[in-house]
Amino acid sequence: MATTKTVGVLGERGGQLGRMLGASASLLNIPIVFLDSGNDTPAKLIVSSSHVDGSFKDPEKIRLLAEKCDVLTVEIEHVDVDALDAVAAEFVSRGLQVHPHPNTIRIIQDKFLQKDHLTLHACPLGRYLEVTETTIAGITHVAERMGLPLMLKSRTQAYDGRGNYALKSLDDVGAALEALGGGERKLYAEAWVPFDIEIAVMVVRGANGEVKSYPPVQTIHKDSICHLVFAPLRNASADKARDVAERAVGTFQGAGVFGVEMFLLANGELLINEIAPRPHNSGHYTIEACETSQYENHLRAILSLPLGSTAMAVPAAGMLNLIPSTKSPNLHLDLTTKALSIPSAHVHLYAKAAPRAGRKMGHITITAPTDDELRNRLRPLLDEDDAERYCRKLPLVAIVMGSDSDLGVMKAAAQMLDEFGVPYELTLVSAHRTPARLTWYARSAVSRGIRVIIAGAGGAAHLPGMVAAQTPLPVIGVPVKSASSPIDGSDALWSIVQMPKGIPVATVAINGAANAALLAVRMLGMNVEMEAYLRKIEGEVLTKIDSIEELGWEAYMKK
Amino acid sequence: MATTKTVGVLGERGGQLGRMLGASASLLNIPIVFLDSGNDTPAKLIVSSSHVDGSFKDPEKIRLLAEKCDVLTVEIEHVDVDALDAVAAEFVSRGLQVHPHPNTIRIIQDKFLQKDHLTLHACPLGRYLEVTETTIAGITHVAERMGLPLMLKSRTQAYDGRGNYALKSLDDVGAALEALGGGERKLYAEAWVPFDIEIAVMVVRGANGEVKSYPPVQTIHKDSICHLVFAPLRNASADKARDVAERAVGTFQGAGVFGVEMFLLANGELLINEIAPRPHNSGHYTIEACETSQYENHLRAILSLPLGSTAMAVPAAGMLNLIPSTKSPNLHLDLTTKALSIPSAHVHLYAKAAPRAGRKMGHITITAPTDDELRNRLRPLLDEDDAERYCRKLPLVAIVMGSDSDLGVMKAAAQMLDEFGVPYELTLVSAHRTPARLTWYARSAVSRGIRVIIAGAGGAAHLPGMVAAQTPLPVIGVPVKSASSPIDGSDALWSIVQMPKGIPVATVAINGAANAALLAVRMLGMNVEMEAYLRKIEGEVLTKIDSIEELGWEAYMKK
Repeated sequence: MATTKTVGVLGERGGQLGRMLGASASLLNIPIVFLDSGNDTPAKLIVSSSHVDGSFKDPEKIRLLAEKCDVLTVEIEHVDVDALDAVAAEFVSRGLQVHPHPNTIRIIQDKFLQKDHLTLHACPLGRYLEVTETTIAGITHVAERMGLPLMLKSRTQAYDGRGNYALKSLDDVGAALEALGGGERKLYAEAWVPFDIEIAVMVVRGANGEVKSYPPVQTIHKDSICHLVFAPLRNASADKARDVAERAVGTFQGAGVFGVEMFLLANGELLINEIAPRPHNSGHYTIEACETSQYENHLRAILSLPLGSTAMAVPAAGMLNLIPSTKSPNLHLDLTTKALSIPSAHVHLYAKAAPRAGRKMGHITITAPTDDELRNRLRPLLDEDDAERYCRKLPLVAIVMGSDSDLGVMKAAAQMLDEFGVPYELTLVSAHRTPARLTWYARSAVSRGIRVIIAGAGGAAHLPGMVAAQTPLPVIGVPVKSASSPIDGSDALWSIVQMPKGIPVATVAINGAANAALLAVRMLGMNVEMEAYLRKIEGEVLTKIDSIEELGWEAYMKK
Repeated sequence: MATTKTVGVLGERGGQLGRMLGASASLLNIPIVFLDSGNDTPAKLIVSSSHVDGSFKDPEKIRLLAEKCDVLTVEIEHVDVDALDAVAAEFVSRGLQVHPHPNTIRIIQDKFLQKDHLTLHACPLGRYLEVTETTIAGITHVAERMGLPLMLKSRTQAYDGRGNYALKSLDDVGAALEALGGGERKLYAEAWVPFDIEIAVMVVRGANGEVKSYPPVQTIHKDSICHLVFAPLRNASADKARDVAERAVGTFQGAGVFGVEMFLLANGELLINEIAPRPHNSGHYTIEACETSQYENHLRAILSLPLGSTAMAVPAAGMLNLIPSTKSPNLHLDLTTKALSIPSAHVHLYAKAAPRAGRKMGHITITAPTDDELRNRLRPLLDEDDAERYCRKLPLVAIVMGSDSDLGVMKAAAQMLDEFGVPYELTLVSAHRTPARLTWYARSAVSRGIRVIIAGAGGAAHLPGMVAAQTPLPVIGVPVKSASSPIDGSDALWSIVQMPKGIPVATVAINGAANAALLAVRMLGMNVEMEAYLRKIEGEVLTKIDSIEELGWEAYMKK
């Protein structure tokens, strides 16, 4: 391979990101050395090497690490950047590199500078204001300009909700000031963002400036700490989110992966929340679910190797952080035990010495062939509220019809899907009476996770073809014999089957709704279930054969 | 979690299986200690722990390991079994367990005893005979009874082709004797098996006797060393292979994973070649491709935890061993460099000190959404001969028709699939003239990797429905308007579309072969490509609109 360079990591005591980076380095025989406090930290435990014992803020220890390495990187942005600059200068002659660039870390570690940088580069942000004087008067002044509620944030040393204060009333300014260091720290304010969901995009930036993004994911926070991640994000704004994230990361110097957290508003608008210049919690899922993990891509980027594919290797994935609470101090172990009985639940425990409420002790990634199956697998690991909110049944098949008078025929499709346990949605979409709804419905189907659409219609029967014209999904058409058809449903059959070249509709028999569902099951690749069904209906006929044999055909007919 | 037991591994110096077992143990915080020679071995490098330095044949060192552990296991079967028995007895009071059971290792490490054991339990085997006297006369006697060619094998200490001699002529008996230890070792003979392909099945056996198998894989050996693995095996005998493997493993005592190697003969017969009582090279692919890896399942089994799902999480996977040759001493590094540019190529280097011809330095696992894409990705890593033999294009879609007179219509399906780069096969299958071929063709389609079948027929048009009746795959029917149709193809349309409840055919327009292909592309889930196609045909119409606007409709018509 092209590299035998040693990587040095400025790590957090008890940092899981370094641990996963180390596991990834082992696979490629990349020598890696950690600087963190203690000798039995999560990262050091899985890489046998002569590590450095000390803090990421200690210039002497950073120098000691630099002496052993060819490339320095970080698993936390709150490092001593001046010390990084100093070693980069001192060891320039032997080519020591620091990734991402110290300037990038300097900008990002001060959230206010980070916002100013992004503003300068025209990246979409919510409103924010500097608190020029960290006093009650200074904060009150900003609150009056910005309006309440607002988020008061420490400019530095803030993560996982620490260093944030949601200010809802001017009466609380004193309490806020005390909670955020009592005037010792610099603060700034962010306007309240009424977001729909939170999303995150991991982006990898090569040493040559090449930028590649992973599929956007939905992140769900609890007490300001990442709790759940669903990948990929099923939303029409996914492409736009990738674009925003890639552009934002493109404005920074140096190589490595970056986590870009965003708010998605109800109107489709995207606002960047913050950026992390390192592997990120929202990218843990990439280890099992993507063609290259965020950790391997971080190593590839900082070592000037080709960037790996960021595509997902599985259709759906979810990630749950294992964080004990005061009430459940062993939650991480209890959930691990449960996970052992869940297919494809990949447990990652971080070997941290002392569990503590709010401490990330591990995570579980689940992969699945469908969004719905992912939720089935995840459900037992969540409390009742979360299960109800985040693991509702998601339809794989859509059954639509132009009129409720088609229900008598189309219900057979729903019943057959029930028999196979395939989740579906059933609704009315009329090509002629609700053309706008038709367009919305067909265009949004892919992003909502639908894999097959069954459309029933009678008479002029335009629905299946018009749906097919506005979605890349396979559409199954059911010609419905309406009461008013003068030609027993042939009108609908011809309308549905004789589609022009370019836009096919998979047509079944007149009133063949049950067969439409069976065709959908075949399209979903449920070969085993379909084989069983074929054996079942074969068995039904064989039983009748026996019965005719036994009774004679005349007695059989009288039965 | 339910366990804090420490696992001890009797390891080979430079053993990669221990290394991967250690990586798996880290994820679950399972303490693991290795016994092997040296302090910088592949396994020890990725688990920081107080390991034992010594040989798996040294009773003293085995005892030292046992003192540190609650469960002992092996990554190689050539260990000192008496020493295992001794420590099991000595530490019985504090509950030390040995998995698999020493009796199992004792039987398996002597290949002749292994064969006798399997024969006793009615497992399918090729003929084999003991060489009672390890002399020229003794070998000649066996060769005369068994016939030539035959495989002469050392009963113990044999792996990766070492300890085997292919005896083709009685003139070579002396050379064989010398190659196999010159009379020092016990030998036995196996009749030559004219196999079609070699397959392997990983099986995990719980401490409670529960047995679960992974999908069978095809293995390809080079110079008697595992070279390539394809998962899953696409062959009608796959289910039978699983069954044979599960039954064979069920006859042994103790917990853990077992690798069962088999020969598949041209007539579908399966013969067990040999069994390994540990993780196996043919199961490396499970790390990225299955819901639980063989390594994690080995740990779960020996720790009496619930066994994990053995299902594949991705549609297809392949594994290539990285083995330098005298001609290419750095082959493993060269292939690693190439792999960095291949999507989903997961490199595992074993950190072995000295590369040597024939030494396993690492492996690469590739996952892919289809068998065909897997081969596209694997091809650049193989030499020309292997690429030609193992990475031929594999069809995803089958286009069949009853008569070559349908080709004029059906070629449009082939051309459209070419446009999308979807690999297909095209052939004749006549329901009425070749009914036996019809049955074979439909029933074998799934196991050959076909995902969608397009069937075209005219007149009575039975082909699509009869195919659909004998496969769980979606079948698209194209009504062909034959020259002799008195009703312009309506006969074929009605024959195809009006299938009885239970067996649907996705019917397209009369002569709608191009649309059948487009429907197949939709069924394959190629949403991005289909969106692009829809934009393309939209663009074609928009261009015409501009042209009518510009020229006026009369001039346009004259164009």
